[in-house]
Amino acid sequence: MLIKSQVKYIQSLSQKKLRDEEGVFVAEGPKIINELLRSATVKPRALYAVPEWIQVHNDVLSTMHANAVNEVSVSELERISFLSTPNQVLGIFSRPVFAAAADPAKSIVLMLDTIQDPGNMGTLLRTADWFGIEQVVCSEDSADAFNPKVVQSTMGSISRVQVEYTDLDRYLQKHAHVPVYAATLDGTPVHELKKIKNGILLIGNESKGIRASLLQKTTHRITIPGRGGAESLNAAVAAGILMNVLSGYGQ
Amino acid sequence: MLIKSQVKYIQSLSQKKLRDEEGVFVAEGPKIINELLRSATVKPRALYAVPEWIQVHNDVLSTMHANAVNEVSVSELERISFLSTPNQVLGIFSRPVFAAAADPAKSIVLMLDTIQDPGNMGTLLRTADWFGIEQVVCSEDSADAFNPKVVQSTMGSISRVQVEYTDLDRYLQKHAHVPVYAATLDGTPVHELKKIKNGILLIGNESKGIRASLLQKTTHRITIPGRGGAESLNAAVAAGILMNVLSGYGQ
Repeated sequence: MLIKSQVKYIQSLSQKKLRDEEGVFVAEGPKIINELLRSATVKPRALYAVPEWIQVHNDVLSTMHANAVNEVSVSELERISFLSTPNQVLGIFSRPVFAAAADPAKSIVLMLDTIQDPGNMGTLLRTADWFGIEQVVCSEDSADAFNPKVVQSTMGSISRVQVEYTDLDRYLQKHAHVPVYAATLDGTPVHELKKIKNGILLIGNESKGIRASLLQKTTHRITIPGRGGAESLNAAVAAGILMNVLSGYGQ
Repeated sequence: MLIKSQVKYIQSLSQKKLRDEEGVFVAEGPKIINELLRSATVKPRALYAVPEWIQVHNDVLSTMHANAVNEVSVSELERISFLSTPNQVLGIFSRPVFAAAADPAKSIVLMLDTIQDPGNMGTLLRTADWFGIEQVVCSEDSADAFNPKVVQSTMGSISRVQVEYTDLDRYLQKHAHVPVYAATLDGTPVHELKKIKNGILLIGNESKGIRASLLQKTTHRITIPGRGGAESLNAAVAAGILMNVLSGYGQ
């Protein structure tokens, strides 16, 4: 059963300010919840699940504090869910804790300038995770990685990829010796590139691209040649194509 | 001004059955509307726009039937919009009319098995358009290309890419001589592939992948190697990576 204060608390987590203050994020659905419960970087603070889910997860639940597991009805789950179709279980987790941030002089770091769409942000984190990129540096005006929609789109990668929000100009100044590969419409064709071991891959805003001050600090401009009528590629698709070439895993 | 029957009619277009009967689709926002108004494949049936948009588009509007252009207030636009943030103009367009379907023996055709997410479907069409793929063949249970969310995600590509819904098993039987490249988790690494001139690129459902009956008919299985923790890539990102390699434009 749910009490009013629980409903209010969960609903309040739609706001970034309150999520940040609490140091938590919300995830939903058996697939992502099961993955997060096995993760070493995040800890469950509370679970709200229908009886069917609880019955088949007694082993996991026995390791949790009894108060942290709440049996709810389908209609109660609907009241607290951020999904249009609630799916058995909602969990509140502590934010992932990582070792020191990856150094772009030693590995590939993904940099996102003002990515605004939560779905794009989540897909970018998931794609980085696929290619073994452990660090994503975002401008402060990018979509919040702990927004429930972003968390769902990461499909669990939120617990494996370290996301940092910072002043990107300062970040590039600090790492001035590192190659910066920027996705633009006027660069070297992506097919001419070789895989890299380190550096920064910079992806810009969905409609405005990369801001001028950052573009000035890049060392390589890369373009994905096309021949159809589309004006541009989706930011996550473009980033995926570049990560596939630059990370060169499997080559 | 809007009359009740107009509001009802536009709202009814959220249903596939009624969109199909009318042979129309809805698009919103200045960018996509301006592109569609210049397109040779679609015709505007009706526009609903705020005065600010109408004032700067008098040249386009002068070529349309006077009854087809409706000035609406911001609150009226909110009533008919399918977007969470309505954006100046909503248009109802006739479905695109194309010449004969592309032949997979002569060019690359994208095949989609049960793509369910409207955002993914739209991004897939946009990406196909970028790489010059003119024909997309979808299983009948895939997301409808003329769903308003799909149309928005295509960013205008809906007017350039021909989308066909059909029985995919029969389609492959009919084109039995054509190479079929399937995105799977156990195939040849994508980096080992060369560009192709013709064939079918087959992408499967977001969680279930490609159904067995189709997988049996493929000639090449392709995998995008990864090394991180993510279990899979987003369907549109995976398709973009494969299209970039197979279409080989710029090489």
